[in-house]
Amino acid sequence: MELYLIRHGIAESGGSQITDEERSLTKEGRQKTEKIAQRLKTLGLHFDLIATSPLVRARQTAEILIATGLSSQMEECTHLGFDGDIRSWVADWLEPRNYSSQTQLALVGHEPCLSEWASILLWGDAKQGLVLKKAGMIGIKLPEKGSYLGRSQMFWLTPPKYLL
Amino acid sequence: MELYLIRHGIAESGGSQITDEERSLTKEGRQKTEKIAQRLKTLGLHFDLIATSPLVRARQTAEILIATGLSSQMEECTHLGFDGDIRSWVADWLEPRNYSSQTQLALVGHEPCLSEWASILLWGDAKQGLVLKKAGMIGIKLPEKGSYLGRSQMFWLTPPKYLL
Repeated sequence: MELYLIRHGIAESGGSQITDEERSLTKEGRQKTEKIAQRLKTLGLHFDLIATSPLVRARQTAEILIATGLSSQMEECTHLGFDGDIRSWVADWLEPRNYSSQTQLALVGHEPCLSEWASILLWGDAKQGLVLKKAGMIGIKLPEKGSYLGRSQMFWLTPPKYLL
Repeated sequence: MELYLIRHGIAESGGSQITDEERSLTKEGRQKTEKIAQRLKTLGLHFDLIATSPLVRARQTAEILIATGLSSQMEECTHLGFDGDIRSWVADWLEPRNYSSQTQLALVGHEPCLSEWASILLWGDAKQGLVLKKAGMIGIKLPEKGSYLGRSQMFWLTPPKYLL
Protein backbone atom coordinates (compact mmCIF):
# COMPACT_ATOMS: atom_id res chain seq x y z
CA MET A 1 0.00 0.00 0.00
CA GLU A 2 1.25 3.49 -0.76
CA LEU A 3 0.56 6.71 1.12
CA TYR A 4 1.05 10.13 -0.43
CA LEU A 5 1.26 12.77 2.30
CA ILE A 6 0.41 16.12 0.73
CA ARG A 7 0.69 19.45 2.52
CA HIS A 8 -1.99 22.05 1.75
CA GLY A 9 -1.13 24.90 -0.63
CA ILE A 10 -0.26 28.50 0.31
CA ALA A 11 -3.04 29.94 2.48
CA GLU A 12 -4.05 33.42 3.66
CA SER A 13 -2.65 34.68 6.93
CA GLY A 14 -4.66 34.33 10.11
CA GLY A 15 -6.08 37.39 11.78
CA SER A 16 -8.82 38.69 13.98
CA GLN A 17 -11.45 38.21 11.28
CA ILE A 18 -11.08 34.48 10.67
CA THR A 19 -10.16 31.45 12.71
CA ASP A 20 -7.20 29.25 11.76
CA GLU A 21 -9.65 26.57 10.65
CA GLU A 22 -11.23 28.95 8.15
CA ARG A 23 -8.07 30.15 6.39
CA SER A 24 -8.43 29.68 2.61
CA LEU A 25 -5.87 29.12 -0.12
CA THR A 26 -4.67 32.36 -1.67
CA LYS A 27 -5.03 32.94 -5.41
CA GLU A 28 -1.32 32.04 -5.80
CA GLY A 29 -1.78 28.99 -3.58
CA ARG A 30 -4.71 27.81 -5.67
CA GLN A 31 -2.87 28.35 -8.99
CA LYS A 32 0.29 26.58 -7.84
CA THR A 33 -1.68 23.68 -6.39
CA GLU A 34 -3.57 23.32 -9.67
CA LYS A 35 -0.29 23.18 -11.62
CA ILE A 36 1.14 20.59 -9.23
CA ALA A 37 -2.01 18.49 -9.48
CA GLN A 38 -1.70 18.57 -13.29
CA ARG A 39 1.93 17.46 -13.05
CA LEU A 40 0.99 14.58 -10.72
CA LYS A 41 -1.61 13.49 -13.24
CA THR A 42 0.93 13.67 -16.06
CA LEU A 43 3.26 11.49 -13.96
CA GLY A 44 0.52 8.85 -13.88
CA LEU A 45 -0.59 9.12 -10.26
CA HIS A 46 -4.09 8.11 -9.18
CA PHE A 47 -5.43 7.74 -5.67
CA ASP A 48 -8.17 5.35 -4.55
CA LEU A 49 -9.15 7.90 -1.95
CA ILE A 50 -8.11 11.37 -0.84
CA ALA A 51 -8.47 11.79 2.91
CA THR A 52 -8.20 15.38 4.07
CA SER A 53 -7.89 17.38 7.23
CA PRO A 54 -11.21 19.16 7.88
CA LEU A 55 -9.49 22.58 7.87
CA VAL A 56 -10.52 24.76 4.92
CA ARG A 57 -7.06 25.16 3.33
CA ALA A 58 -6.54 21.38 3.33
CA ARG A 59 -10.03 20.63 2.04
CA GLN A 60 -9.58 23.16 -0.78
CA THR A 61 -6.28 21.48 -1.69
CA ALA A 62 -7.98 18.08 -1.77
CA GLU A 63 -10.80 19.51 -3.93
CA ILE A 64 -8.23 20.69 -6.48
CA LEU A 65 -6.74 17.17 -6.61
CA ILE A 66 -10.24 15.76 -7.17
CA ALA A 67 -11.08 18.36 -9.84
CA THR A 68 -7.86 17.42 -11.68
CA GLY A 69 -8.99 13.80 -11.82
CA LEU A 70 -6.42 12.39 -9.40
CA SER A 71 -9.18 10.57 -7.53
CA SER A 72 -12.95 10.29 -7.54
CA GLN A 73 -13.31 9.90 -3.79
CA MET A 74 -12.63 12.31 -0.97
CA GLU A 75 -13.46 12.25 2.70
CA GLU A 76 -12.65 14.30 5.75
CA CYS A 77 -10.53 12.67 8.41
CA THR A 78 -10.22 14.37 11.79
CA HIS A 79 -6.92 12.54 12.47
CA LEU A 80 -5.35 14.74 9.76
CA GLY A 81 -6.13 17.96 11.64
CA PHE A 82 -3.57 19.39 14.04
CA ASP A 83 -2.30 17.05 16.76
CA GLY A 84 -3.58 14.00 14.92
CA ASP A 85 -1.90 10.85 16.20
CA ILE A 86 -0.74 8.36 13.59
CA ARG A 87 -1.10 5.40 15.95
CA SER A 88 -4.81 6.24 16.41
CA TRP A 89 -5.20 6.80 12.68
CA VAL A 90 -3.72 3.39 11.87
CA ALA A 91 -5.76 1.58 14.55
CA ASP A 92 -9.09 3.40 14.18
CA TRP A 93 -9.17 4.50 10.54
CA LEU A 94 -6.77 2.51 8.35
CA GLU A 95 -6.75 -1.06 9.69
CA PRO A 96 -10.56 -1.55 9.93
CA ARG A 97 -10.81 -0.79 6.19
CA ASN A 98 -8.75 -3.80 5.10
CA TYR A 99 -7.45 -2.09 1.98
CA SER A 100 -5.67 -4.28 -0.57
CA SER A 101 -1.90 -4.05 -0.89
CA GLN A 102 -2.39 -2.18 -4.19
CA THR A 103 -4.26 0.71 -2.60
CA GLN A 104 -2.90 4.23 -3.07
CA LEU A 105 -4.13 6.80 -0.56
CA ALA A 106 -3.50 10.54 -0.53
CA LEU A 107 -3.57 12.25 2.88
CA VAL A 108 -3.88 16.05 2.78
CA GLY A 109 -2.85 17.82 5.94
CA HIS A 110 -0.46 20.09 7.81
CA GLU A 111 3.03 20.54 9.12
CA PRO A 112 4.69 19.50 11.34
CA CYS A 113 2.16 16.64 11.59
CA LEU A 114 2.76 15.07 8.17
CA SER A 115 6.56 14.89 8.38
CA GLU A 116 6.22 13.52 11.93
CA TRP A 117 3.85 10.83 10.65
CA ALA A 118 6.38 10.02 7.93
CA SER A 119 9.26 9.70 10.38
CA ILE A 120 7.18 7.49 12.72
CA LEU A 121 6.29 5.25 9.76
CA LEU A 122 9.95 5.03 8.76
CA TRP A 123 11.79 4.89 12.08
CA GLY A 124 9.20 4.54 14.82
CA ASP A 125 9.90 7.99 16.31
CA ALA A 126 8.84 11.54 15.53
CA LYS A 127 12.11 13.03 14.25
CA GLN A 128 12.91 16.31 12.64
CA GLY A 129 14.90 16.55 9.43
CA LEU A 130 12.29 16.22 6.65
CA VAL A 131 11.36 19.46 4.89
CA LEU A 132 7.80 19.38 3.53
CA LYS A 133 6.90 22.68 1.87
CA LYS A 134 3.34 23.83 1.18
CA ALA A 135 1.92 21.73 -1.70
CA GLY A 136 4.90 19.38 -1.37
CA MET A 137 4.53 15.63 -1.06
CA ILE A 138 6.02 12.59 0.67
CA GLY A 139 5.53 9.10 -0.84
CA ILE A 140 5.66 6.12 1.55
CA LYS A 141 5.33 2.40 0.93
CA LEU A 142 3.84 0.42 3.81
CA PRO A 143 5.08 -3.12 4.49
CA GLU A 144 2.70 -5.88 3.36
CA LYS A 145 2.77 -7.64 6.73
CA GLY A 146 3.23 -6.63 10.33
CA SER A 147 3.21 -3.20 11.92
CA TYR A 148 3.54 -0.19 9.65
CA LEU A 149 5.32 1.90 12.29
CA GLY A 150 9.11 1.94 12.01
CA ARG A 151 8.99 -0.46 9.06
CA SER A 152 7.80 1.62 6.10
CA GLN A 153 9.92 3.05 3.29
CA MET A 154 10.08 6.52 1.82
CA PHE A 155 10.44 6.58 -1.97
CA TRP A 156 9.59 10.22 -2.66
CA LEU A 157 9.88 13.61 -1.02
CA THR A 158 9.40 16.54 -3.33
CA PRO A 159 9.25 20.27 -2.90
CA PRO A 160 6.56 21.92 -5.03
CA LYS A 161 9.09 23.81 -7.17
CA TYR A 162 10.24 20.58 -8.80
CA LEU A 163 6.66 19.71 -9.76
CA LEU A 164 5.85 23.04 -11.44
CA MET B 1 25.48 24.22 1.77
CA GLU B 2 23.51 21.68 -0.25
CA LEU B 3 24.47 18.11 -1.09
CA TYR B 4 22.86 16.17 -3.92
CA LEU B 5 23.48 12.45 -3.45
CA ILE B 6 23.06 10.79 -6.84
CA ARG B 7 23.10 7.04 -7.39
CA HIS B 8 24.77 5.78 -10.58
CA GLY B 9 22.56 4.72 -13.52
CA ILE B 10 21.66 1.16 -14.56
CA ALA B 11 24.86 -0.84 -15.07
CA GLU B 12 25.75 -4.15 -16.70
CA SER B 13 25.73 -7.28 -14.52
CA GLY B 14 28.93 -8.52 -12.98
CA GLY B 15 30.48 -11.74 -14.22
CA SER B 16 33.69 -13.64 -14.63
CA GLN B 17 34.93 -11.31 -17.37
CA ILE B 18 34.88 -8.02 -15.48
CA THR B 19 35.38 -6.91 -11.91
CA ASP B 20 32.68 -5.03 -10.03
CA GLU B 21 34.79 -1.87 -10.30
CA GLU B 22 34.76 -2.12 -14.11
CA ARG B 23 31.00 -2.52 -14.66
CA SER B 24 29.75 0.09 -17.16
CA LEU B 25 26.39 1.75 -17.63
CA THR B 26 24.18 -0.15 -20.06
CA LYS B 27 22.80 1.60 -23.15
CA GLU B 28 19.46 2.00 -21.30
CA GLY B 29 21.27 3.25 -18.20
CA ARG B 30 23.14 5.82 -20.23
CA GLN B 31 20.02 7.04 -22.05
CA LYS B 32 17.94 7.32 -18.87
CA THR B 33 20.75 9.11 -17.05
CA GLU B 34 21.06 11.59 -19.93
CA LYS B 35 17.31 12.32 -19.77
CA ILE B 36 17.46 12.82 -16.02
CA ALA B 37 20.46 15.13 -16.34
CA GLN B 38 18.53 17.19 -18.90
CA ARG B 39 15.58 17.43 -16.52
CA LEU B 40 17.83 18.54 -13.66
CA LYS B 41 19.23 21.25 -15.90
CA THR B 42 15.71 22.35 -16.87
CA LEU B 43 14.87 22.54 -13.15
CA GLY B 44 17.72 25.02 -12.76
CA LEU B 45 20.23 22.89 -10.87
CA HIS B 46 23.95 23.60 -11.06
CA PHE B 47 26.73 22.08 -8.96
CA ASP B 48 29.99 23.78 -7.99
CA LEU B 49 31.62 20.36 -8.08
CA ILE B 50 30.66 16.77 -8.87
CA ALA B 51 32.55 14.33 -6.65
CA THR B 52 32.28 10.73 -7.81
CA SER B 53 33.08 7.25 -6.63
CA PRO B 54 36.05 5.94 -8.65
CA LEU B 55 34.02 2.94 -9.88
CA VAL B 56 33.34 3.03 -13.63
CA ARG B 57 29.51 3.10 -13.46
CA ALA B 58 29.59 6.09 -11.07
CA ARG B 59 32.27 7.93 -13.04
CA GLN B 60 30.28 7.46 -16.25
CA THR B 61 27.19 8.85 -14.50
CA ALA B 62 29.17 11.89 -13.32
CA GLU B 63 30.54 12.39 -16.86
CA ILE B 64 26.97 12.54 -18.21
CA LEU B 65 26.10 15.22 -15.62
CA ILE B 66 29.19 17.19 -16.71
CA ALA B 67 28.40 16.76 -20.44
CA THR B 68 24.88 18.10 -19.77
CA GLY B 69 26.35 21.26 -18.28
CA LEU B 70 25.31 20.63 -14.67
CA SER B 71 28.84 21.41 -13.51
CA SER B 72 32.24 22.21 -14.99
CA GLN B 73 34.25 20.43 -12.31
CA MET B 74 34.49 16.77 -11.45
CA GLU B 75 36.83 14.82 -9.22
CA GLU B 76 37.13 11.27 -7.94
CA CYS B 77 36.62 10.73 -4.23
CA THR B 78 37.55 7.38 -2.73
CA HIS B 79 35.17 7.95 0.21
CA LEU B 80 32.30 7.53 -2.26
CA GLY B 81 33.31 3.96 -3.15
CA PHE B 82 31.85 1.05 -1.21
CA ASP B 83 32.21 1.17 2.58
CA GLY B 84 33.03 4.88 2.51
CA ASP B 85 32.53 6.43 5.93
CA ILE B 86 30.75 9.77 6.06
CA ARG B 87 32.52 10.83 9.25
CA SER B 88 35.89 10.45 7.49
CA TRP B 89 34.55 12.19 4.41
CA VAL B 90 33.39 15.19 6.45
CA ALA B 91 36.63 15.39 8.48
CA ASP B 92 39.16 14.64 5.74
CA TRP B 93 37.50 15.87 2.55
CA LEU B 94 34.72 18.38 3.22
CA GLU B 95 35.79 20.47 6.21
CA PRO B 96 39.35 21.29 5.00
CA ARG B 97 37.85 22.88 1.87
CA ASN B 98 35.99 25.63 3.74
CA TYR B 99 33.24 25.88 1.14
CA SER B 100 30.88 28.83 1.41
CA SER B 101 27.34 28.28 2.67
CA GLN B 102 26.08 28.77 -0.92
CA THR B 103 28.02 25.79 -2.28
CA GLN B 104 26.11 23.03 -4.06
CA LEU B 105 27.91 19.70 -4.32
CA ALA B 106 26.82 16.57 -6.19
CA LEU B 107 28.10 13.25 -4.83
CA VAL B 108 27.77 10.30 -7.22
CA GLY B 109 27.96 6.88 -5.60
CA HIS B 110 26.30 3.64 -4.59
CA GLU B 111 23.69 2.00 -2.44
CA PRO B 112 23.32 1.30 0.41
CA CYS B 113 26.09 3.82 1.15
CA LEU B 114 24.32 6.98 -0.06
CA SER B 115 21.05 6.44 1.82
CA GLU B 116 23.08 5.56 4.92
CA TRP B 117 25.04 8.79 4.56
CA ALA B 118 21.72 10.65 4.23
CA SER B 119 20.27 9.08 7.36
CA ILE B 120 23.44 9.82 9.36
CA LEU B 121 23.30 13.45 8.23
CA LEU B 122 19.63 13.66 9.23
CA TRP B 123 19.44 11.58 12.41
CA GLY B 124 23.00 10.67 13.39
CA ASP B 125 22.50 6.93 12.74
CA ALA B 126 22.60 4.68 9.68
CA LYS B 127 18.93 3.74 9.35
CA GLN B 128 17.03 1.91 6.69
CA GLY B 129 13.85 3.29 5.18
CA LEU B 130 15.02 5.54 2.34
CA VAL B 131 14.60 4.10 -1.16
CA LEU B 132 17.20 5.46 -3.59
CA LYS B 133 16.81 3.89 -7.05
CA LYS B 134 19.51 3.90 -9.70
CA ALA B 135 19.84 7.44 -11.10
CA GLY B 136 17.68 8.71 -8.25
CA MET B 137 18.68 11.61 -6.02
CA ILE B 138 18.55 12.85 -2.43
CA GLY B 139 18.85 16.59 -1.68
CA ILE B 140 20.19 17.59 1.74
CA LYS B 141 20.75 20.98 3.33
CA LEU B 142 23.63 21.13 5.82
CA PRO B 143 23.33 23.40 8.87
CA GLU B 144 25.35 26.62 8.66
CA LYS B 145 27.02 26.09 12.05
CA GLY B 146 28.00 23.12 14.15
CA SER B 147 28.20 19.45 13.26
CA TYR B 148 26.49 18.28 10.09
CA LEU B 149 25.73 14.83 11.48
CA GLY B 150 22.24 14.40 12.89
CA ARG B 151 21.43 18.06 12.19
CA SER B 152 20.91 18.26 8.42
CA GLN B 153 17.61 18.42 6.57
CA MET B 154 16.33 16.45 3.60
CA PHE B 155 14.37 18.54 1.11
CA TRP B 156 14.28 16.14 -1.84
CA LEU B 157 14.23 12.43 -2.54
CA THR B 158 13.23 11.47 -6.03
CA PRO B 159 13.01 8.23 -7.94
CA PRO B 160 14.26 8.55 -11.53
CA LYS B 161 10.82 7.89 -13.03
CA TYR B 162 9.54 11.25 -11.78
CA LEU B 163 12.43 13.02 -13.51
CA LEU B 164 11.94 11.45 -16.95
